[in-house]
Amino acid sequence: MDQHSNTIGIAREATLGELAAMIGGQVIGDASLRIFGAAPLYEVVSGQITLVDGVGQSLEGNAETGFAASAFVTGAARTDSPHPQIIASDPRGAFAQIVEYFLPAVAPHSVGIASGAHVHASAQLGEGCVIESGVNIGRCVQIGQRCHIMPGVVVMDHSRIGDDCVLFPNVTLYERTQLGNRVLIHSGTVLGAYGFGYRQHQGQHIRTAQLGNVVIEDDVELGAGVTIDRGTYGSTRIGTGTKIDNQVMIGHNCQIGQHNLLCSQVGIAGSCSTGNYVVLAGQVGLKDHIHLGDGAIVGAQAGVMEDLPGGQVYLGSPATTQREQMQIMAVQRRLPEMRRSLKHLERSLANTASKDTAAGERAA
Amino acid sequence: MDQHSNTIGIAREATLGELAAMIGGQVIGDASLRIFGAAPLYEVVSGQITLVDGVGQSLEGNAETGFAASAFVTGAARTDSPHPQIIASDPRGAFAQIVEYFLPAVAPHSVGIASGAHVHASAQLGEGCVIESGVNIGRCVQIGQRCHIMPGVVVMDHSRIGDDCVLFPNVTLYERTQLGNRVLIHSGTVLGAYGFGYRQHQGQHIRTAQLGNVVIEDDVELGAGVTIDRGTYGSTRIGTGTKIDNQVMIGHNCQIGQHNLLCSQVGIAGSCSTGNYVVLAGQVGLKDHIHLGDGAIVGAQAGVMEDLPGGQVYLGSPATTQREQMQIMAVQRRLPEMRRSLKHLERSLANTASKDTAAGERAA
Amino acid sequence: MDQHSNTIGIAREATLGELAAMIGGQVIGDASLRIFGAAPLYEVVSGQITLVDGVGQSLEGNAETGFAASAFVTGAARTDSPHPQIIASDPRGAFAQIVEYFLPAVAPHSVGIASGAHVHASAQLGEGCVIESGVNIGRCVQIGQRCHIMPGVVVMDHSRIGDDCVLFPNVTLYERTQLGNRVLIHSGTVLGAYGFGYRQHQGQHIRTAQLGNVVIEDDVELGAGVTIDRGTYGSTRIGTGTKIDNQVMIGHNCQIGQHNLLCSQVGIAGSCSTGNYVVLAGQVGLKDHIHLGDGAIVGAQAGVMEDLPGGQVYLGSPATTQREQMQIMAVQRRLPEMRRSLKHLERSLANTASKDTAAGERAA
Repeated sequence: MDQHSNTIGIAREATLGELAAMIGGQVIGDASLRIFGAAPLYEVVSGQITLVDGVGQSLEGNAETGFAASAFVTGAARTDSPHPQIIASDPRGAFAQIVEYFLPAVAPHSVGIASGAHVHASAQLGEGCVIESGVNIGRCVQIGQRCHIMPGVVVMDHSRIGDDCVLFPNVTLYERTQLGNRVLIHSGTVLGAYGFGYRQHQGQHIRTAQLGNVVIEDDVELGAGVTIDRGTYGSTRIGTGTKIDNQVMIGHNCQIGQHNLLCSQVGIAGSCSTGNYVVLAGQVGLKDHIHLGDGAIVGAQAGVMEDLPGGQVYLGSPATTQREQMQIMAVQRRLPEMRRSLKHLERSLANTASKDTAAGERAA
Repeated sequence: MDQHSNTIGIAREATLGELAAMIGGQVIGDASLRIFGAAPLYEVVSGQITLVDGVGQSLEGNAETGFAASAFVTGAARTDSPHPQIIASDPRGAFAQIVEYFLPAVAPHSVGIASGAHVHASAQLGEGCVIESGVNIGRCVQIGQRCHIMPGVVVMDHSRIGDDCVLFPNVTLYERTQLGNRVLIHSGTVLGAYGFGYRQHQGQHIRTAQLGNVVIEDDVELGAGVTIDRGTYGSTRIGTGTKIDNQVMIGHNCQIGQHNLLCSQVGIAGSCSTGNYVVLAGQVGLKDHIHLGDGAIVGAQAGVMEDLPGGQVYLGSPATTQREQMQIMAVQRRLPEMRRSLKHLERSLANTASKDTAAGERAA
Repeated sequence: MDQHSNTIGIAREATLGELAAMIGGQVIGDASLRIFGAAPLYEVVSGQITLVDGVGQSLEGNAETGFAASAFVTGAARTDSPHPQIIASDPRGAFAQIVEYFLPAVAPHSVGIASGAHVHASAQLGEGCVIESGVNIGRCVQIGQRCHIMPGVVVMDHSRIGDDCVLFPNVTLYERTQLGNRVLIHSGTVLGAYGFGYRQHQGQHIRTAQLGNVVIEDDVELGAGVTIDRGTYGSTRIGTGTKIDNQVMIGHNCQIGQHNLLCSQVGIAGSCSTGNYVVLAGQVGLKDHIHLGDGAIVGAQAGVMEDLPGGQVYLGSPATTQREQMQIMAVQRRLPEMRRSLKHLERSLANTASKDTAAGERAA
């Protein structure tokens, strides 16, 4: 097993036995088999190892190639396969380790400020920071230890960043943004732009106060292309441990709780708040000033128009409880049938009525 | 009141009387009380001043701390509070002034082109411009007076920018973009990318002409992550005074009127036009070639599929008048009940019919 | 016809005859008429030429100015207009050529690496590449021939770019991104950010493996502000010839087929796949692990919650066939009317029942 060969043009390899030893697994089959890479079932090719982690998961691979892998990692021996396998107690974790082994080796970045980075003289940086070329850091910015700030990131005046933060390329932090420790922000994300607040005066929209900032607590991760606006007078805040997916929009003054999961393209208008462990699925929208209780879960594309208590699942636009919405949706698909029934009933009743009338006339 | 103390590590302070004098307000309570900061009710702490602007607004503050502020600004004396207060005729404006007083002082940026900015020799800059490090300005670009262009902004060839414009970090203007005066653009916004126009030829999608540009008129503000595509042959245009929130998408050839408000995540397909004072709430979508009349208001998440006259509110997808949509929505929540009623009626009528038949038979 | 005059301050001009010769068209009217620009009907002014390409298209122009152009390009002679015209077999293509003639001339960029670009020593660049100022290219990156990489683009370690690719400003490619040939990517787009995958452990969301990359095949075009996440262990892949509009989000592990058209603000959750020639209209959302068959077309704002076979049009949220959805929508608008009918029927039947009872009593 060659630890140093993984540069351009020289692919890494290992025997099945070496891979099994690396992850503490057990080989079934030929341990001397040479493996040249690792890939998921949908794109694995001969010579590579793959992952079969689902109980009873099909071993057919993709439609064109069948099961193309030369070996696989799994949790329990598969007697229905002739291929060599590695049995691992945590097959996903084990496979991740094997994938990493085959990835191109990347030398660590040099600690310090690269030439081509622009760091204002008044900024303070902790030990072990990597500030790459093309970074701009403003006046009086404070950055903790071991942060990695990548090209094109702009950190405006008076921002404060904790320890062990990672800012991917082209992130923008407006002035006075605060990040806790271990915050990770993906490319293109913008924290602290002005809130969308205007008052009308003589036919013009006049911008209201935009004096607040954005505060991101510890262990928060923000996807790519996220925008979080500053508070009006105070902070827009994202609570500890919350994870936010790509292209999410969070308006001014919002107070997002701890350990929330906000999926892609969610839009939250100004002054909303959420409890802890709230989950918003993709493309959900919240009207301004909404509160969602602890553990509330809102389904994809729902539109929340009123406060919702926690511990429940909500769907639809306007969003109501899953129970109610499922009933409504079930009936909605039967609307054309219902309309026909209704027409039929009306005709029947009209007939009955006219017969009654006729009968009444005859009787009279 | 110390005008120069607000640097890192040294917090500003002022007495309540000094703050009242600053904003032309009147103190009720101890004017010598020392105040160390200003924050909104949801995050104010002891020693700070807050804002109580709603008539009859609760003075309870947040759930954990109660009313934590040491004083507050308000519009009319609150006899239900023991706390010192400043009465101001415009409490929001007054409070904004006070918040600003406590913010860290930021020295103005140096006028001129920073080292580390790349400005093509053929570009023309007006007086008083601040061009920060990491800016790229292309060939034949013209920029007016007193513009502030922040790091990572790219202004491509032949673009023209008016006076007093502010471009926040990492904005991109494609070639021949035109900005009027006092245009403000937040980070990550992209003006002038190609429209999504293709024709199919032998199974390929072939890009159609992308020869136009984007024109932004005076006093327009664009949020973060906005994308506005160039026109096919001419301009995509945003009218004077229109304000556009984060992550809005505007397609090629659109003609957005004056003083519109387009909220976050709105998507407008190609060749749409809007009158003046149109409001689109969050996540609204417009099909291509739609026209919205003056003053049309479209509610959140609505989908506009046909031209809509102005001066009305529209909801739903497909969007119809608020009146119609409210009736539909009201009935939708009763759909399960309606279905039960319908089933019940059918059974009743079936019974009646069989009884009639039976009665008929008996009568016969 | 002056080929060199189109610099700032000096507008180009040509006679109608010269323009007709340029595009191989035929003049009807005064061929010596001097033309000073070209613009679409909605913004053309006197002295310019416009396009009238629709059969029977109105010649009224816009409401304020009427038909302001001095001449127009068309496919078949318009006898209902007194204006000079150029008849062209492909009027749109001809008009595009004329528009281009009047655009400001832009000198080609210098081949090579601009000062102010940061290209790692281990990166390999093909012949004819233009690497502009403010570009950052990481370790072991390979770039083919004739690529144009614009300011603010960041290409992270071990990425590979084919021939003839264009990367507009402020694009970010994470490590190991692969682009085929003739790939065009608009500003602000981010390829390879981490997927939104977490598992919960002791109340924390722990990030799962993020070891894959993004692969973009030949002839793909990506709009502005697009985000495509890396695969978990393998690749997220966009097939040959697929075109993706602004602000589209594609989750980890997705396998998008060939020649798809994904319109603006579409959101596709993780592990989805599409066949070839799939079309998703604006703001469509797909749940994770969905498959759409070849040629499936999904209408604007629809939400796809289950696999859908190809060759059909789908609408609504949850999405069903157009046929079914159109029937549902038609009935939805009649819901208030249906509810009234239902109430009426119930009352009628109640009356009938009570009359029957009364009749029964009388008869008894």
